Amino acid sequence: MLKIDHSAAEPIYMQICRQLKKQIISGELKTGERLKATRALCEEYHLSRNTVLSAYQQLESEGYVRSRIGSGFYVEELPGYEKAKEDANLSFRKTEKKKTCRYDFRYGALEPNLYSTSGFRRALKEATDELSNKESLFNEEASGLYGLREAICQYLFESRDMRASPDQVLITGGHHYSISLLLKILPKSYQTLFMEEPGHDDSSATFLQAGYQLIPIEVDEGGMKVDLLSEKKRSIVYVTPSHQFPMGAILPIARRLQLISFAKKTHSYIIEDDYDASLRYKERPIPSLFSLDASDCVIYLGSFSKSLSPDLRISYIVLPAGFDRFSLQENLLISSPASALIQLCIEKYIRSGQYKTRVNKVRNLLKKKHNAILSFLEENYGDRIKVYGSGGGTHFVLKLPVDKKQEDILSFFEARDIRLYPMKDYYIQKDKAAENMVLLGYSGIPLTRLEDHLGQLKKALDELLEENS
Amino acid sequence: MLKIDHSAAEPIYMQICRQLKKQIISGELKTGERLKATRALCEEYHLSRNTVLSAYQQLESEGYVRSRIGSGFYVEELPGYEKAKEDANLSFRKTEKKKTCRYDFRYGALEPNLYSTSGFRRALKEATDELSNKESLFNEEASGLYGLREAICQYLFESRDMRASPDQVLITGGHHYSISLLLKILPKSYQTLFMEEPGHDDSSATFLQAGYQLIPIEVDEGGMKVDLLSEKKRSIVYVTPSHQFPMGAILPIARRLQLISFAKKTHSYIIEDDYDASLRYKERPIPSLFSLDASDCVIYLGSFSKSLSPDLRISYIVLPAGFDRFSLQENLLISSPASALIQLCIEKYIRSGQYKTRVNKVRNLLKKKHNAILSFLEENYGDRIKVYGSGGGTHFVLKLPVDKKQEDILSFFEARDIRLYPMKDYYIQKDKAAENMVLLGYSGIPLTRLEDHLGQLKKALDELLEENS
Repeated sequence: MLKIDHSAAEPIYMQICRQLKKQIISGELKTGERLKATRALCEEYHLSRNTVLSAYQQLESEGYVRSRIGSGFYVEELPGYEKAKEDANLSFRKTEKKKTCRYDFRYGALEPNLYSTSGFRRALKEATDELSNKESLFNEEASGLYGLREAICQYLFESRDMRASPDQVLITGGHHYSISLLLKILPKSYQTLFMEEPGHDDSSATFLQAGYQLIPIEVDEGGMKVDLLSEKKRSIVYVTPSHQFPMGAILPIARRLQLISFAKKTHSYIIEDDYDASLRYKERPIPSLFSLDASDCVIYLGSFSKSLSPDLRISYIVLPAGFDRFSLQENLLISSPASALIQLCIEKYIRSGQYKTRVNKVRNLLKKKHNAILSFLEENYGDRIKVYGSGGGTHFVLKLPVDKKQEDILSFFEARDIRLYPMKDYYIQKDKAAENMVLLGYSGIPLTRLEDHLGQLKKALDELLEENS
Repeated sequence: MLKIDHSAAEPIYMQICRQLKKQIISGELKTGERLKATRALCEEYHLSRNTVLSAYQQLESEGYVRSRIGSGFYVEELPGYEKAKEDANLSFRKTEKKKTCRYDFRYGALEPNLYSTSGFRRALKEATDELSNKESLFNEEASGLYGLREAICQYLFESRDMRASPDQVLITGGHHYSISLLLKILPKSYQTLFMEEPGHDDSSATFLQAGYQLIPIEVDEGGMKVDLLSEKKRSIVYVTPSHQFPMGAILPIARRLQLISFAKKTHSYIIEDDYDASLRYKERPIPSLFSLDASDCVIYLGSFSKSLSPDLRISYIVLPAGFDRFSLQENLLISSPASALIQLCIEKYIRSGQYKTRVNKVRNLLKKKHNAILSFLEENYGDRIKVYGSGGGTHFVLKLPVDKKQEDILSFFEARDIRLYPMKDYYIQKDKAAENMVLLGYSGIPLTRLEDHLGQLKKALDELLEENS
């Protein structure tokens, strides 16, 4: 028996199809049994022959029945089977959402907004127009659009003193992607990984994920203590020389040269993560380690997250000129994760000169925030709160004169609608992290609201310091 | 001695800085030596004190010198160092470019163009406007924009009979990214990987890259021969049930149920790659394996490459409802490679109903090409050329009645400006591939040019068959 509803949205042949499937799966229609002849079904339900034939042919395509020429459709043999839940449990475990705080000193956010600028909109329109003219669309080069790689090389030459050709550049889908890809490219014999301590948490997470054992190297006011690197052959040294993350030190030239000669001697690779090099507020950006390297041992990581927007998800790798990329090309890249439209848009944005303007605009704005927060801290707390990382970047590390657990300090602020961030996240050896150090990011707070944020922070800090005095 | 060029583009303090760096690195200025006093330098070169101070402070920031209060700037000790090549070799090994062919039957290209449609442009504009209104920009959810995941669930419910919640969906940066991510998510104890033979080359490359050993399972006119799966605990079965790649079979319901019960019994996972399910030209799209699964063992891979554009680089994974995603959330995802702008644009495109219209449009166009090529082959070659994979998708596999090596067949066509593709690429066991089978893709060839392509193909085929008769 079939139920045909002529007024339903579901086409009639699908109604037939669905019900017959059910009967076959439930065993109501048995293996080898012949389906009712199409003509008989047509008459019984007043249907057109086409409708019934469509239903039977669909069943045949999916393998429920098989037609025998001149004889009809017969039910195929199906194995036993537990029926799919008709209403599967859709209450999948939700991502635990953190309570939001009104005064959030989040690291990694960015304003001013990129998408509202006429420059970006123009580049986006030009990119859309250019793609519109393509006869057919296909998966573009796995290493990224050649034009964008060229524009990046030009920019790096002018701003970071780097000589690299587009063939050395790989466009990626963000920092995490860059590191993952790099770990695939590097020969498997490179197994020792030296990491700054404290250092970038997403980087160490990615290294750990890829199965590397991390050797933490202490950081002081000159960045990574290069002296502490043990002379292992074929190691990888991950370093943020322009602005150590999160402590903010600049790696001095002596340590840079020492690092390069270490890499040369041990046949190691240095990963230079140049995540916010353009953001210096007193001096010029510090020249890249890559630009000092004559031995092809520095791999450079760049990104647009701190200049354009973190949600664009475009980063890039610059490989040393001597890197053997042949096997990589053939076997490892496979495809790019970066949308052609976004890549082309950024290329046009760089080539038009707007990118440089944007970098300056972002730097000037961040400098104002940086200076305001620094003055605020100095004027109100002087030596009582030690500040790390001033002079560049998008955050400070604060050492608070309190004797409390880090979790308790953060909860104290959270109860006052303020979010600061735990320094512990940046340590491989969690026990080395000082309890009273927290991270304060400012790049996402609009300048107009900074005073309000600092007012609230002052109230909380005063209360906290009072409590501890 | 310094050379100061007042007419140069390089700021004067940078000229000083650059020359002093050179002198320090070369040893001309020795460790511990005091730089000329700022006042003396000012007088000697007629410079302002600020200019000289800027240069000295930059040198200090980078660690070349150190200031002693009231005494001046002293050269720091630097280790020996091989100078960076001033003109590094920029002739990096170029990617070997294949000769382009005018008549390219490439797989994976797509027309009609998405970017020229008013629907896409409207969605892109709306997405840009929405992002413009954000107070600050940040790295969005690692699993992808919630709204897009929701829109995908709605679409999959309506078109693929799938019940999944947005929390089960991960947005990725394309097919390769989906598989790589999946292999990270799956517990390390899942080490056996069954793969269709022939099967999808990028998928097997990704599995191999991740260190899996592949067990090839033969494919016949009913797709993967599920009978051949050996009962290993905790294995992974990669399968393309809606349209086996590249041979084009539909996995019949009996094999589907058998596969699910295999997975249930052996605690295995099935990866259902549903890469072109919407492209059926006779019957309705075949319901997904995921929709039959009551035991939470099917992981579904979807993509916009065959409906929107391959260069958007957006694919997605749908995890079974019972999948433990907790550890994943915390440790593995880290960040999404997909641009927020593109994600939001696709969300709006789906929600406005334009996505469904587009899918129909693409299907209708491809159906015309499919039918034209099929008629062409049948009319001209009848049984002499066996055609696999008709009825759906974007390509055919042809078995040519010639006794030649595959390379020679492809070169024969290439010499006539025609590119066909080697079936060998899709085999794990290369020796199992028949020499006389080639892949012909048609989705990127405009309908208006198809006749021209087929005319050229006919000339070459006639010549080839003549030669072999």
